[in-house]
Parts: sequence; C-alpha cells; structure tokens
Amino acid sequence: MVEHRKPIKVNEAIERVMQYTIKGSLQRVPIEESYGHFLGEDLVADHHVPPFDRSPYDGFALRSKDTNEATRNAPLQFEVIGEIGAGSVFEREVGEMQAVRIMTGAQIPKGCDAVVMLELVQEMEREGKSLIQIKRSFKTGDNISFAGEDTKKGAVLAPKGTYINPGMVALLATFGYKNVPVGTKPKIGIIATGSELLDIDEPLQPGKIRNSNAFMVYSQIQRAGGEPVYFGQFSDEFHTCYEQVKAALEQVDLLLTTGGVSVGDYDYLPAIYEKMGANVLFNKVGMRPGSVTTVAEKDGKLLFGLSGNPSACYVGFELFTRPIIRTFLHSYQPVMKKEVAVLGADFSKPNPFDRFVRGHLSFEDGNLVATPVGLDKSSVVSSLGAANILILLPGGTRGYERGMKVSVLLLEDQEGTKLEQFFHEASTDKRRKRYDG
Amino acid sequence: MVEHRKPIKVNEAIERVMQYTIKGSLQRVPIEESYGHFLGEDLVADHHVPPFDRSPYDGFALRSKDTNEATRNAPLQFEVIGEIGAGSVFEREVGEMQAVRIMTGAQIPKGCDAVVMLELVQEMEREGKSLIQIKRSFKTGDNISFAGEDTKKGAVLAPKGTYINPGMVALLATFGYKNVPVGTKPKIGIIATGSELLDIDEPLQPGKIRNSNAFMVYSQIQRAGGEPVYFGQFSDEFHTCYEQVKAALEQVDLLLTTGGVSVGDYDYLPAIYEKMGANVLFNKVGMRPGSVTTVAEKDGKLLFGLSGNPSACYVGFELFTRPIIRTFLHSYQPVMKKEVAVLGADFSKPNPFDRFVRGHLSFEDGNLVATPVGLDKSSVVSSLGAANILILLPGGTRGYERGMKVSVLLLEDQEGTKLEQFFHEASTDKRRKRYDG
Repeated sequence: MVEHRKPIKVNEAIERVMQYTIKGSLQRVPIEESYGHFLGEDLVADHHVPPFDRSPYDGFALRSKDTNEATRNAPLQFEVIGEIGAGSVFEREVGEMQAVRIMTGAQIPKGCDAVVMLELVQEMEREGKSLIQIKRSFKTGDNISFAGEDTKKGAVLAPKGTYINPGMVALLATFGYKNVPVGTKPKIGIIATGSELLDIDEPLQPGKIRNSNAFMVYSQIQRAGGEPVYFGQFSDEFHTCYEQVKAALEQVDLLLTTGGVSVGDYDYLPAIYEKMGANVLFNKVGMRPGSVTTVAEKDGKLLFGLSGNPSACYVGFELFTRPIIRTFLHSYQPVMKKEVAVLGADFSKPNPFDRFVRGHLSFEDGNLVATPVGLDKSSVVSSLGAANILILLPGGTRGYERGMKVSVLLLEDQEGTKLEQFFHEASTDKRRKRYDG
Repeated sequence: MVEHRKPIKVNEAIERVMQYTIKGSLQRVPIEESYGHFLGEDLVADHHVPPFDRSPYDGFALRSKDTNEATRNAPLQFEVIGEIGAGSVFEREVGEMQAVRIMTGAQIPKGCDAVVMLELVQEMEREGKSLIQIKRSFKTGDNISFAGEDTKKGAVLAPKGTYINPGMVALLATFGYKNVPVGTKPKIGIIATGSELLDIDEPLQPGKIRNSNAFMVYSQIQRAGGEPVYFGQFSDEFHTCYEQVKAALEQVDLLLTTGGVSVGDYDYLPAIYEKMGANVLFNKVGMRPGSVTTVAEKDGKLLFGLSGNPSACYVGFELFTRPIIRTFLHSYQPVMKKEVAVLGADFSKPNPFDRFVRGHLSFEDGNLVATPVGLDKSSVVSSLGAANILILLPGGTRGYERGMKVSVLLLEDQEGTKLEQFFHEASTDKRRKRYDG
C-alpha cells in the first residue's frame, strides 16, 4: 500500500500524466454533427478558390483591348449580347465591341479579360439593341478574381487537431467534406466513493450530503470533449469496491474516482491501486486545493483519484484529466490556455503551496482582470457557477495584492495551448510585476 | 414588392428584431444533459449549506468548557470515546473530559461545541484507553462550520436564464435537481437559395460553387443554442419557392434563408415576403458586410434573409439571429459580449459604413489585442476558422490605425450581455483613444 505521500510540483505531475497520452481512433461524422469536434486529419483544399475566373462585382465583362481608346470626351459603346448570373456559364464567345452583363460571383465569359463595374457605365437602347457606354480604358485582368488566387488546390487549410468552429465548418463544406474525420470521444468512467454521499434524488439525512462531484465532473468531461460514463456510487467494502473498479476500468478509456474524504482514515484507493498492480504516478501534489490527487496507470489506462472536496476535484480534473482528453481528440494544444491578468483582490497571507483559485475573468477597458469567486464563506456555494478561470498563485513567502499581475488558466476557452507554452509561461509568474496601466 | 432599400443603423435594426422575441417553453432534462443549456427557473437552495454543524478539519470534537484550564505547562487529557467519519452520526452524547475523533465533513456529535485540529493534540494510550492531550483552551464554536453559514435554505443561487457550466451543475446536484428546468431549443429552419450552389457531395461544375453557408449557419445555430433544421436548397422558380418557404415556416420557430446573390437581379425574396403578407422590419442595414440583410415577421415568427456572401451571412446571423435564439432560451444577456481591444492592424481607408471585421482576439501581457483575419486575399479562406471576434469599426471620415482602441464582439463567449449594455458601450467607440500601455 502506498502509505507515504511525497508531494511533487504541479508541472512535474502534469508531465508524468502526459507520458501516458493516447490518441483516439478516427471516425467520420456528418458535417452537421462536426461542430465542437477536433479535426482528425488535415483539412485540404480539393480545388482552387475561386474555382474559376470570376467577377467580384455586378457589371459588364468585355475584352479590355476594345476599351483602349475610350475617354471621357470620346466614350465608346458596346453591345450587350447577354447576361450571366452566378452559377451559369455563358455559352458563346464574346467578340469585338461586345459585352455581357455579369453578376457577382459569375464565371468570366470566354473572350473577356476585364469587368467594368455597374456604376461606371451608362446603359442605353438603340434599334432594339442594349448598349453600354464607357468613358475610360481597362487593362487585362481588371476586376477579375482569378482561379486559385485565394487558395491553391492541395493547400492545407487547417492542421489535424484544430477545434471545429462555424468558420471551420464553412471550410469543410467548401471543400466537399460531407463527412468529417474527427477523433472519437474518449469514454471516461466516473465512480463516486464516500459513505456520506446521498444520491441526487434522495431526501437529506443527518450527517450526509448529496453527491455533487460526480455530476460536476460529468459536465467537465463534456466540456473537455469526452463521453462520460457514470458508474454510480461504489461500495465502502474494500473487496467489492476493488472488483467494481476493475470491472469499470475495462469498459472505459480512463477512469475517475471522486472520493468523499480528502485525507481521512477511510481512503482505500491506494490499496485498490496496489492490488490491481497499477503504477502510481503520484499521490500528492504541492498545490491547494487538490493536494491529495492521485494518478495511477494500469496497462496504459489512467486512473485519476480526484479529491472528494468539490474545489479540489474541479481543479484536479482541469489540470490533469483535461489534457489527456484533448490529446485523445488529436488536439495539438491540449492544455488550458494561460494568460496574464491583473489580480482583483488581495491574498495577503503567504502560502508555501501553489494555489489555484477559482475566479472570474472580466475585461476592463482592454485589460484582463481576475477576480476570485467565493472568497467569502457566505458566497462560496453560489459563486461556483461564476468561475471561468483558475487564478494561479505560486507558493512562496509573500502574499499577493490587488493590482498585481498573475497567471490565469482559461476554463471556457477551446483553443488551448501547447504543454511547452504552458510550462514556459509559468516561469514568468515569478515576476509579480505591479500593474501601472 | 419591396423595391426601395433604405439602410438603417445596426443598433436600430437589432432593436426592431428584438421587438419580436419569444421565450420558449420549459422542459426538464436529466442533470447529465443539462450542461450548456440555460436555466429555465431560478436555482433555489432546498436546504442549508452546510446542512448541519460540521467539522472543516480532521480532529477531535469536545466540549469547549472542559478546555478552559488547559495550558502549555498544564495540559489536559481527554478520553477518546469513539470516532466518526463523514456520513455517519455519533449516537451517544459526549460527556465531561471526553472527545470524539472526527473526520473532515462529519457532523458535530451531540454535546460538543468545538473541534481541536489533529495537529494540535498529542495522542496516547493508557490502561487500554485512547487519550488525547491538549495544551490550550478553545471557545465555543471553534472550528465548526455551522448549518446554513454558507447558504440559507430558500436562497436564489442563480437566476433564470443563467448558462449552465460545470460549477452550475455542481449546484444543481447539491440542491437535488435530478431533472433540471431549461428552455426548449428553438427550431431554426435553414433554406439555401441560389442557382450557383452545388450540394456538398456534388462534383464541381463550371461556374458553380459548393453550398457552404447552409452548413456554416447550421453550426452557428448550434453554437447559439438552437436546433437547426436544414430544408435543403430551394427552387429558383418563384411559385415553387414561395410554397416551400411557406411550408418550411410552419415547421420551425424561425426561418433563415441564405441567398446565393448578394444584390443581383435574381433576388426574389422580397416578393416572397410580400406574397406571404409578411411585415418587413428592414431590408438594408448601414453596415459592411451584410448590408442587404432582410428581416421580416409573419404571425410572430421571424424570417431572416441572410446574404449569400459568407462573411455577410456570418455577421448577419450573429448580430440579429443570435439574440433571438438566446432570448428564446431564457438568457437574460442575449447579445454578444462587447469589449474594448487594441487594434492589431491598420484600416487606413475611411469607410462611411460601420464595419464588422472578422478577427482573432489574443491576450498580450494582460491586454486584449484584436487582429483581423483574412485581410490578405491569399489567406481569406483558411482564416475563416480563426475568427473568435468581430471587430467593430464605426463608419466615418477617418481610418483606423494599429494601436487604436476598438470595440470587439466575442463570438465564443457564453455569458453574453444585455441589450442596453451592448448599445451603451457602442457610444464609447467614438473615442478612438490611442493605446499607451
């Protein structure tokens, strides 16, 4: 049994977990269901954009050489021999002193090499013929969007692992991805342990509380892009629980437990890991909350032993489980985005441990401001919903004051960042520069 | 037929649309499916938090009056008569000079009024009895979390219309919401028109392009929280199209069309609106792109005639359709959040119209920086996926330079803002203050 708990640094803990990343298999989903997934393959242009020479304006297509002599004082007249809307092709070849009325987006007719914008011509009729009069010359290529000038066939427009937002969906449709290659969602099992836990629909009982962590983590998994599988609340009896954990692990890609006791005498998870023959990566992290987070690995599958304390459970998931889920989905920026913000409250008391404080990021006249939520006891419950960042306060011998610059981790962001970048920026936290903006 | 198109200001257009908001009916979804919805009712605490007096630490519960005489030099010994884990209730009453080992979160036993933290006691055995020794006195209430001190029963913890994130899910579970009241998703119909459009799986043909707008808007609807219904590409023949639009409108809460021609001769949507007896709210907006956006209303249902130009379609949706969807979902902040950022590129050429430029918001050392995407023709296609903001450049006689402060609208944000706030902040755009940070 793992008895001694030696704390390791947060970054070291993340690195150990990230040695066991797995990339999920690919599947194709209909483009209508692709929003919110991550690209499983590079997005490649299957044709030039524009696909053909086309008109960017409403106007008249003609041969530029016929306009050479046109001036304000000696305008030239062209016969309008037809019109062409977007989506159709003009069948004939346009000849000398002829023009074709052309709509935005339509293909340039054969023979033409310039477009004159609608506003620059004077339209007239003579002997049943439509004419236009122009007062200046045009050069070959004027007002033509040439095939391939935006994007060349074969170009990679987004790399594998890109988050699919509506703009990406437009690209996928443009290049014919009726079915989109995306990573399959990892199945994440959830087990709640703790004899004090009531089911959500049970009436309250003396000494007991409702199980909120399991559902909180359930939605954190959804936000991260995984598929949660809730196994319910497991037995307090060691052998039964061991069998339950073992059976659950076989059905999922990774398994979370959220215990009811943060460090109490009843925590038998270490013993279960040992009996399973799992390799414990760490069982204590030098951070608050979440110091008793345990991660183990068994035959390549990760077991996350998250705390029963709601804040600790929340933070442990976002730091350690989220990047595993995002990597499974082929995201190349699997870690939470880390930014600099101005601290909106005092944390005067020094703390030897790195703290991750739930906060709300707001913008004030172009600056990022990080305000802790739930510092007062009286608001700790209702403020849980307001958190959209974790404020990172590195441990040390000094406190933090309102107005200092601190690092924040973005919870609702979908872009994420690379592991190296996450670690790199962490080293700048030491600055604790005052904000003079 | 509406022939004359008189442009109105963007804010005026939004106000006209918002006169036709509808709040959708409520439904209850299992808590596991509640993430990403909006609360349909206020979230109310069904019990005190904590529900009972409990210990915030591992330690020993005892009667504080028995500790009065304890000092460093004259420590007192207490008999440990039992232990109590989280979730269980100590059955007996604790008497004079007795103590009970208590775990974090467990209920304070009868008779006790203080908890001594584990670190402050010395444990010992004598004559088969467990004893603890303490070296200082404690007051009544020391180290006890009292029932209701965090939240009182009946308190409203989040108002109707709040976005449900994982923290909210934790609250819902805590207060017994096995099924969560949420707004039903509005059904949004999508019709593509335009004879130049190919289906996504059709091979390219001369003069034609694939229909990307319908799928882009489909995912924009998903992002906004609606349920898209794609009716496909409709006929170019007026009467057939009229019948199709009329039939489609009956099946949805609101209907979007995205046309293939931005202002060309073939746009028969106005005639269809007139034949339906729809009330046209506006058919031209003083903005770029999206000036030809049309919104009409028929028997309380809105019809959005979005442009066939991808950028115009995108912007028109986010400005006019999104707040209608969010209001339907009972969000009280239905409009895109508007913030101030530093412009990351020059827009030197003045433009009389308010422009909405797709851009990417990044953070640089605590400041918001808005960089336009797709300014170069060569990157216009691939950059579509990078946009997470619209940069608002109010029309006027001067251009904008890199480093100026501008307003940006956040596309991926879920909090949103109130209509008044959106309009209010708009008036500050005029400042065009230089950024000196």
